[in-house]
Amino acid sequence: MDKDQTIGFIGLGQMGKPMAANLLSAGYCLRAYNRSAGRVQELGAAGVTPAAKPVEAVASGGIVVTMIANDQALEEVVQGMGGFGEALGEGGVHLSMSTVAPATARRLAAYHADRGSAYVAAPVFGRPEAAAARKLWICVAGAPAARSRVQPLLEVLGQQVYDFGDNPASANVVKLAGNFLIVTALEAMAESFALAAKNGVDPARFATVMSETLFGGPIYQNYGRLIASGIYEPAGFKLSLGKKDIDLVQQTANESRVPMPLASLLHDRLLSGLARNRGDLDWTALALGVREDAGLSGGS
Amino acid sequence: MDKDQTIGFIGLGQMGKPMAANLLSAGYCLRAYNRSAGRVQELGAAGVTPAAKPVEAVASGGIVVTMIANDQALEEVVQGMGGFGEALGEGGVHLSMSTVAPATARRLAAYHADRGSAYVAAPVFGRPEAAAARKLWICVAGAPAARSRVQPLLEVLGQQVYDFGDNPASANVVKLAGNFLIVTALEAMAESFALAAKNGVDPARFATVMSETLFGGPIYQNYGRLIASGIYEPAGFKLSLGKKDIDLVQQTANESRVPMPLASLLHDRLLSGLARNRGDLDWTALALGVREDAGLSGGS
Amino acid sequence: MDKDQTIGFIGLGQMGKPMAANLLSAGYCLRAYNRSAGRVQELGAAGVTPAAKPVEAVASGGIVVTMIANDQALEEVVQGMGGFGEALGEGGVHLSMSTVAPATARRLAAYHADRGSAYVAAPVFGRPEAAAARKLWICVAGAPAARSRVQPLLEVLGQQVYDFGDNPASANVVKLAGNFLIVTALEAMAESFALAAKNGVDPARFATVMSETLFGGPIYQNYGRLIASGIYEPAGFKLSLGKKDIDLVQQTANESRVPMPLASLLHDRLLSGLARNRGDLDWTALALGVREDAGLSGGS
Amino acid sequence: MDKDQTIGFIGLGQMGKPMAANLLSAGYCLRAYNRSAGRVQELGAAGVTPAAKPVEAVASGGIVVTMIANDQALEEVVQGMGGFGEALGEGGVHLSMSTVAPATARRLAAYHADRGSAYVAAPVFGRPEAAAARKLWICVAGAPAARSRVQPLLEVLGQQVYDFGDNPASANVVKLAGNFLIVTALEAMAESFALAAKNGVDPARFATVMSETLFGGPIYQNYGRLIASGIYEPAGFKLSLGKKDIDLVQQTANESRVPMPLASLLHDRLLSGLARNRGDLDWTALALGVREDAGLSGGS
Repeated sequence: MDKDQTIGFIGLGQMGKPMAANLLSAGYCLRAYNRSAGRVQELGAAGVTPAAKPVEAVASGGIVVTMIANDQALEEVVQGMGGFGEALGEGGVHLSMSTVAPATARRLAAYHADRGSAYVAAPVFGRPEAAAARKLWICVAGAPAARSRVQPLLEVLGQQVYDFGDNPASANVVKLAGNFLIVTALEAMAESFALAAKNGVDPARFATVMSETLFGGPIYQNYGRLIASGIYEPAGFKLSLGKKDIDLVQQTANESRVPMPLASLLHDRLLSGLARNRGDLDWTALALGVREDAGLSGGS
Repeated sequence: MDKDQTIGFIGLGQMGKPMAANLLSAGYCLRAYNRSAGRVQELGAAGVTPAAKPVEAVASGGIVVTMIANDQALEEVVQGMGGFGEALGEGGVHLSMSTVAPATARRLAAYHADRGSAYVAAPVFGRPEAAAARKLWICVAGAPAARSRVQPLLEVLGQQVYDFGDNPASANVVKLAGNFLIVTALEAMAESFALAAKNGVDPARFATVMSETLFGGPIYQNYGRLIASGIYEPAGFKLSLGKKDIDLVQQTANESRVPMPLASLLHDRLLSGLARNRGDLDWTALALGVREDAGLSGGS
Repeated sequence: MDKDQTIGFIGLGQMGKPMAANLLSAGYCLRAYNRSAGRVQELGAAGVTPAAKPVEAVASGGIVVTMIANDQALEEVVQGMGGFGEALGEGGVHLSMSTVAPATARRLAAYHADRGSAYVAAPVFGRPEAAAARKLWICVAGAPAARSRVQPLLEVLGQQVYDFGDNPASANVVKLAGNFLIVTALEAMAESFALAAKNGVDPARFATVMSETLFGGPIYQNYGRLIASGIYEPAGFKLSLGKKDIDLVQQTANESRVPMPLASLLHDRLLSGLARNRGDLDWTALALGVREDAGLSGGS
Repeated sequence: MDKDQTIGFIGLGQMGKPMAANLLSAGYCLRAYNRSAGRVQELGAAGVTPAAKPVEAVASGGIVVTMIANDQALEEVVQGMGGFGEALGEGGVHLSMSTVAPATARRLAAYHADRGSAYVAAPVFGRPEAAAARKLWICVAGAPAARSRVQPLLEVLGQQVYDFGDNPASANVVKLAGNFLIVTALEAMAESFALAAKNGVDPARFATVMSETLFGGPIYQNYGRLIASGIYEPAGFKLSLGKKDIDLVQQTANESRVPMPLASLLHDRLLSGLARNRGDLDWTALALGVREDAGLSGGS
């Protein structure tokens, strides 16, 4: 086995599965683990070795990719029962691609360093469609040698790789700060659309003009259309996950003593969404709270 | 005099002067008024007739463009001493291009309607450089005939004209909602840059990556660079004017009963800027407040 | 007529009528005006001369009390058609007891000074029951001689008079700042009660303990009980009036460049109350918004 | 040894030491532990047995009081190295009097229940002077028998004991909700004082009038005077501890899905205080941030 051609892959959720599929298409072999094993089967047989627990997905000195829902679950697959932490071994690389706290990255980087393995953080921007189409934007940071070694994988998975240096936590800071910008834009659109609607201006028209002029790029274009449409299902990215990311932003801001009043406001908006059982709607559904506060009914 | 080739132009400030110059270049003749008369001279002699008061800038049944700093000053040039309101006459068109409240637009539209003249609102997006380069984006609304009649002027002044229908106030709502989106983006960038800086990530690098990926368009690109640079002079658009616009947003939101917590937050941030004597800095200087709250020094 | 025994009284609303009745009981004669004249009749015949317009309520050099719903209406009864401004005459005193902006007080004080009359601001703390029971707390400010002259009236109307010096606007600042403290306490109770309720603690019990220990005084005691009860009708003080007062707070803060983020938050909460047609409920009904945000049903 | 006359006492900080001294005065004997042992000596020799680690402070089936700075330290003295958790034994009572999260109370209550011991939460309201003067207000909750057993101690320590039933976490919810009310009042006073100051009204006078009328009770009276004085040292209660308590409020609100925008605002204010190195000032020093935002200098 060429240890750079067989890759461990842990976490086959909405994002992980298309990413794993792309690695397979590019000729990599995978040892794949997912909590509910059915997802592994869905990848097809060719090139995939199912792993019954995380540790079975890694080879000593190899590469293992994780795409895991939250910090605690990530620490569990490394250090918990059946975790791969010890087995990754001298020279191994843990390529961690989900959105976690910089503090978690620091903790895991230290854990791996103690064992001669390396932790590379490479969180991604993009929704499941972008993952499938290899259109992800990837922010990478970690020890230089390990970073170089995973570069070919990242090029398979994304349209562009942005390098943020040697400290893995830096990539996570960028990812969280980026998600903070996104949720702020969602709230700002929701508020301005409510203002438009109550003053006789069609929000969809307003959204179009803004995205053609001042606010290009996919966030204002795509989310503007979604919020103006008032359709929040099916979820591309769940409100509950958006809430989790804002929690991580606030945790990081708290630790580094950066007051972020916008993050506080977004937190309260999303928390109210959870309190009203909207956690499984798309995160654009924060607009429902904005509309209700303005005495508008549910849609746009 | 062809009444569509000689145009009244009132207000030769940072925006008005280059706009007037563009009309001259396009072959229009102007009767120009500005509170401090020196600005009129700066336009050069060819094609310009100086007006000693607003009323002298208009011809009955003609077109007069206003580019005036605030609502009160606008109402003054129309209805105050020496104002042009009565003289504009049957069939005249008041093309009002500055940022004012929808309520002001409604008031002036009614005033003109009573006199057989028409009020067309055509506020613009763009800074003085954009005005000079005829790169403004213009939102227009007003009575159909009057709107058609001013269309050639708008095409001289901007790169694109967006039509928002018959109700002049609609164009002002769009302008205010757009400025609200901009200031929200400024604050969001300022907060995320402070988070980045205190966590070892270069804000300029973060800004570049964001504007290349999720957040295209001039707002994130240009302002991101400015905020990351920490240079707030000379002002492209003064913080005090940004504050005025958020006041208009809040006034409109209040009247139409739309709670906008982001606008409240931005109001407090900008008001603190005024309290600290930063009204003449560029509006990106709201980032100074964000930085101070985080215990960071003035620059970026 | 002893010009200090016959008093003009303008505004017989929920507060004004019991106040006028107390002056009558104390032996004063009144010339009374109210927009809807029926309220004057309700005072009974003895000692009351009905006035058909504000100007008929005043005698040159006399005292006139106003208890008027808002700034505009107040300026109207002074300077509008039928207003008493000119008739009050040299030596007259306008004792203005409702809640208006400091800026309005300054304007009216200048207006009266120009005519040899005086403007004394004496806004009150207390609800209609307190007005009836002569338990109002009164904050007074204005020119010394005029202040002394109205002192006996204030002692009839309230349980305590607090003097804030020669500048009438000062009394209005105190009144607004006090109302700001009250609404903040309402919101704080509403939020903490929701926290208690969702964590298995009875809000009424929590309210009782707080008011017996850290938070004595009528605001926490009475409003705590009301909010915990979840009963918002009939209104002792309408939410729409509370909103108006917070608007005045914000206007004053804006003019004097004092960022007040709590006021911004309260503004948005109350504005949402108006947007949801709760303007006629008691201002404690802002708690409904807090509860809904937490996914709790209407009551407490 | 009468196991109810010899009490374990862990944590002799600003609050714990005077509380321990009061128990000694009332005739109890103490086995006392403090991280820095010098504090134990300061209690004097009579009746005090020094403990070298937490476990030495408890007797099986006895009572141990903890007054510990934060949740983590509390869990450490119970379950960490040298912790007393196992030694407290069947029938023992852990009387936990510091401010911790309801979630911590739940965790420790379950821990003790598994071992036949009981966890009684009894957080207190009051500053060190109040602790010394036996003027604390104590909120108690826990299993009925254990609660009855510690009642005599609580009566020694406080002026009033409020019972919140069988669930220990309830007492912590009340304590946190109470501290939330306090910090809200601090911020509200700070904002209103800045408004007063910039409008020519003496904040100290305003504070006095408010506390004599609408806002009785120690919070507005004492803190109003402190904030108006602008003197923030020495700290009666440190800003950093106030920040910790608001963190616990937010954590609890987050877990129970209660959006608390006031708590968010207070969090950002206090976090900015930490970022500016004001953690060791009194928590009233949050007023410095309010003043700076208004362009006022440090004092009041």
